[in-house]
Amino acid sequence: MGRASERRGVLRVDLDATEAGRGRVRRPDTLAAEEPLEIRVGPAGPGRRPPLAVTMRTPGADLDLAIGFLLTEGLIRSTEDVSTAQLCAGTDTPNTYNVVDVTLAAGVPDPVTDVTRHFHTTSACGVCGKASIDAVRTRSLFDVSDDPLSVSAELLSELPQRLRAGQRGFDRTGGLHAAGLFTADGELVVLREDVGRHNAVDKVVGWAVRERRLPLSGHVLLVSGRASFELTQKAWMAGAPLLAAVSAPSTLAVDVASEAGLTLVGFLRGRTMNVYTGAHRVTA
Amino acid sequence: MGRASERRGVLRVDLDATEAGRGRVRRPDTLAAEEPLEIRVGPAGPGRRPPLAVTMRTPGADLDLAIGFLLTEGLIRSTEDVSTAQLCAGTDTPNTYNVVDVTLAAGVPDPVTDVTRHFHTTSACGVCGKASIDAVRTRSLFDVSDDPLSVSAELLSELPQRLRAGQRGFDRTGGLHAAGLFTADGELVVLREDVGRHNAVDKVVGWAVRERRLPLSGHVLLVSGRASFELTQKAWMAGAPLLAAVSAPSTLAVDVASEAGLTLVGFLRGRTMNVYTGAHRVTA
Repeated sequence: MGRASERRGVLRVDLDATEAGRGRVRRPDTLAAEEPLEIRVGPAGPGRRPPLAVTMRTPGADLDLAIGFLLTEGLIRSTEDVSTAQLCAGTDTPNTYNVVDVTLAAGVPDPVTDVTRHFHTTSACGVCGKASIDAVRTRSLFDVSDDPLSVSAELLSELPQRLRAGQRGFDRTGGLHAAGLFTADGELVVLREDVGRHNAVDKVVGWAVRERRLPLSGHVLLVSGRASFELTQKAWMAGAPLLAAVSAPSTLAVDVASEAGLTLVGFLRGRTMNVYTGAHRVTA
Repeated sequence: MGRASERRGVLRVDLDATEAGRGRVRRPDTLAAEEPLEIRVGPAGPGRRPPLAVTMRTPGADLDLAIGFLLTEGLIRSTEDVSTAQLCAGTDTPNTYNVVDVTLAAGVPDPVTDVTRHFHTTSACGVCGKASIDAVRTRSLFDVSDDPLSVSAELLSELPQRLRAGQRGFDRTGGLHAAGLFTADGELVVLREDVGRHNAVDKVVGWAVRERRLPLSGHVLLVSGRASFELTQKAWMAGAPLLAAVSAPSTLAVDVASEAGLTLVGFLRGRTMNVYTGAHRVTA
């Protein structure tokens, strides 16, 4: 589809330019594409499938994104729970391809009518904090706490360069996050880029779901930015025992990793790193 | 409340450490706090207000965040549309303070029952793209296209350092985004930090709403990361004529800025910057 990036005109300002006329230059610039993807989900049958979510994403790997999103949100358990998934080719001119239409397999609960997915409306204000957490928590099918993965700190320190080497979109735009799945030997299995970190991870997970590779036992998931609660939860949902981030984790990311028995590595830069949880998997 | 950051134990690995025992050290690390904030909104009266949204945020300035969110989502127009807003102090032990309860003034549409806020369910797949955009688009009350703001590139180039100098949370954690509001003279008016860029902007906007400073005519809004569609839309909703970002904008950010007549500056680093739209406001 070739819509992962687009060129736009820009005024480039360089306050230190010494050559005449070089201080303000009109030139083309390549930008990371951002467009809404509407994910529609419903049971098989003639009825129209209602929209479940709209995510702002970089076009490309949209089926992976939709499937990964459904898996990490706990709405499907495997590719067998999906009957069909298609990128809509409709009547727009030009066609925007901004909708993925997913038909669930027979017996899979319809998320739109599944009341357990909706907010708890608690009676007392004081229990809201817990209800809020519950509303955003998902439960993984996979126990990663016993995963025997073991990687050396040396090998981990090499992964950011390997991820960076594959970030074609970032090379062009400087504006895309990346997520990469690595084997315990440090081999890059799949890499996805997106304006949203969570989308990049969902694209990786969705690819793995469709390739029937879940759980991601024995693998390392690496993200280019920070590690949030959401990303840590997605790693757990996919059964990955180690999540590494180039930048900082949040408190809740550490809490979820600790609860899951997942190894969380942050500030993985150069020859140093912080291991927040599950340090037994990172050998000297 | 002192919950913007928390200390946790970490294993610090330094592969190049030469001193014996310094290669793997257990030590405390300060992390950016991330907790869910549930925003409840409803009309005045005895009924319980239902949850409208849960956002993962760094605790602090939560009323600003909630009010800013409601404004940038187009659900309120000013502080007069809010009757009361309070951080719930309930019966949790310890109290999590993770809910803001907002009562709307008489005559303000209840967002929970306002069907125009819900998804369009289009009949044909082909128009979905447009419907998706419509579902995430908001309409600003403010026309920023005629805003006479004019700032020199020299002054703009100094703002990231001024923002950075105020980022106390980032100093401690390395894991917080920041948004800052500046006058046309480069004076920092307000700065807010959060694990989410959109929250940092909503906190700034919410502060301005409560201070009755909207529209933000003649001001510059600066964000520490990239400029997405969402952030550009929030700037427009608050009536700010110039959004500057330290990193890359997306295509849709440029499109929204262009439509609004808003000046969008990206890659504002050191002595250089890219002006994507509204270059007439950036003088030599």
